[in-house]
Amino acid sequence: MDDSQQLQQVRARIDALDEQIQRLLNERAELARQTAQIKQAAGLGENCFRPEREAEILRRVIARNPGPLSGQEMARLFREIMSACLALETPLMIAYLGPEGTFTEAAALKHFGHSVKTRPLIAIDEIFREVEAGTAHYGVVPVENSTEGAVTHTLDQFLISPLQICGEVELRIHHHLLSRNKALTEVSRLYAHQQTLAQCREWLDAHLAGCERIPVGSNAEAARRAGNESGCAAIASDRAREIYGLQALATNIEDEPGNTTRFLVIGSQAVVPSGNDKTSLLLSGPNRSGLLYDLLRPLADNEISMTRLESRPSRRKLWEYVFFIDVEGHMEDPKVATALATLKDQASFLKLLGSYPRAVI
Amino acid sequence: MDDSQQLQQVRARIDALDEQIQRLLNERAELARQTAQIKQAAGLGENCFRPEREAEILRRVIARNPGPLSGQEMARLFREIMSACLALETPLMIAYLGPEGTFTEAAALKHFGHSVKTRPLIAIDEIFREVEAGTAHYGVVPVENSTEGAVTHTLDQFLISPLQICGEVELRIHHHLLSRNKALTEVSRLYAHQQTLAQCREWLDAHLAGCERIPVGSNAEAARRAGNESGCAAIASDRAREIYGLQALATNIEDEPGNTTRFLVIGSQAVVPSGNDKTSLLLSGPNRSGLLYDLLRPLADNEISMTRLESRPSRRKLWEYVFFIDVEGHMEDPKVATALATLKDQASFLKLLGSYPRAVI
Repeated sequence: MDDSQQLQQVRARIDALDEQIQRLLNERAELARQTAQIKQAAGLGENCFRPEREAEILRRVIARNPGPLSGQEMARLFREIMSACLALETPLMIAYLGPEGTFTEAAALKHFGHSVKTRPLIAIDEIFREVEAGTAHYGVVPVENSTEGAVTHTLDQFLISPLQICGEVELRIHHHLLSRNKALTEVSRLYAHQQTLAQCREWLDAHLAGCERIPVGSNAEAARRAGNESGCAAIASDRAREIYGLQALATNIEDEPGNTTRFLVIGSQAVVPSGNDKTSLLLSGPNRSGLLYDLLRPLADNEISMTRLESRPSRRKLWEYVFFIDVEGHMEDPKVATALATLKDQASFLKLLGSYPRAVI
Repeated sequence: MDDSQQLQQVRARIDALDEQIQRLLNERAELARQTAQIKQAAGLGENCFRPEREAEILRRVIARNPGPLSGQEMARLFREIMSACLALETPLMIAYLGPEGTFTEAAALKHFGHSVKTRPLIAIDEIFREVEAGTAHYGVVPVENSTEGAVTHTLDQFLISPLQICGEVELRIHHHLLSRNKALTEVSRLYAHQQTLAQCREWLDAHLAGCERIPVGSNAEAARRAGNESGCAAIASDRAREIYGLQALATNIEDEPGNTTRFLVIGSQAVVPSGNDKTSLLLSGPNRSGLLYDLLRPLADNEISMTRLESRPSRRKLWEYVFFIDVEGHMEDPKVATALATLKDQASFLKLLGSYPRAVI
């Protein structure tokens, strides 16, 4: 059998597989439709998206995957399959921090797949309002993205909004070296956000060792300066490059390929446990020394890991600071529930922002 | 059986289906790997992407699809499946007209799926150069996109490049009404590209009947003007809104929801017939009256439909115009071959830019 016959045979087998896959995908869509009908008949609402169920399915897909497709690729395909099936019954509307083409849009599509409708909005409070009003099913907002400067608005909104956190998304971020000049050798000053400088240190030491590094408020600000000054460079995104008309002297210069940023999915529905969850809360108490230590004790006593702590000046006069805390586990888990009950007694202010599945892919 | 038990049962069936689907997807990936090995053993090159084969598969998927998933959704899923399988063996690098977040990036991902690597470049000639040099497998460039002004650069490159057209992509485009003002009633002048004004005429007649409509060179230029003048609006993309700091007074105002723009995939490989193809060519002849009529006769004589004709000033002194022509059919189809042979005798200059599958999804 020659190569061409062999190829024919393999292709015929692929074609046969494709028919089977297509049949199963339509069967799956039919079952998703049945799920929706059962729920609607039971008065369980029209929104059939269940964050905990999707997370469970994706985790199982990754766990049982023998290859050759990687677990990540397989999970990505299943995300799209679930997105297409869900769209048959409940075409989800997702509001996100726009414009089109931002990292937040990419995060929204990564989390919900490409079969949703999306609405880019220009301010974080608008996203909260749309979801509160029910004109969008979910919103996607940046929360740990120290180079884009949008985080604090998100945290501040949680102080006043009744919405819950329904999920988190992690996204890889790339940094580029941008300049008006055309060669690295012409660059003597470098602007970037402090954290970005840190994230690219190895590359900078190897390629721009003699160059002065000047931390500025944001990478967008760095790009703006590099657009005004000759002999300068900035570390920023490709988007900033276009807006300020700069050249990319080098791309993807971050030291860790795993440089990620984090987004939150907000909605009006509480999410039941998925088996691997996080819980976010807001905490405050009267301004005195040792407050935070006291507040954290119930977590430690119950062996609950904290994955993140951030403090923000409070908008209420009574306290000076509000703490945003992420812990491992679901608020229905016995240990977490115990810790939260104790915290509630000790803190002047405790607001549960939601329990949600840990990011899967 | 109560609702919750019914739900449990349906979910168990979905889980069982998912396992089968996952197994078949991995089998498919394994076969794709075998295809690559057979080809490499036979010295058929390392690039396993076959535009005609992908188009055939997608057309068959759409033709045999009984639902409930729509043919378009099903084809989209298969595009991603093929993308993931191909990436196992040949991780494709796709150069496109950047920056990230443009319509051209969306077109590249729609055509190649999300398992490819992409490289945004800032000029169309750079994309041709990268593909010619082999550092990118394919390039994606806009070709019929009268509102973004990049078309002519693409056509001019085809005059001098040895690359072939390997595919076409169609993409839906949305228009928004942008302004510095906050209400429609404050707007008395409207800027947009002539063609955009035409595409939004019904909406404008209904909502901005008394407003002066001023055609400008591009929608980006329209947005720039609306950013400088009060009482003005522009029709442009969400991206332009951000760059010029405008408000969206209304979104998706195009009359036809099918408002599409077209992109070409360029590469160094000729594509064999897929069964539903187009052929693009460049034609020129000595400057005399009736030239175009004479040039088009061989097409008419052979009953070949022309889907597009565009004339461009030639860069060579000998002729005044070069014609870019798209026809239905593959250059290996007997009728097309006959017409092309006749054309070659009559024209001073004939360049075949490639035969490629008509856009499927």
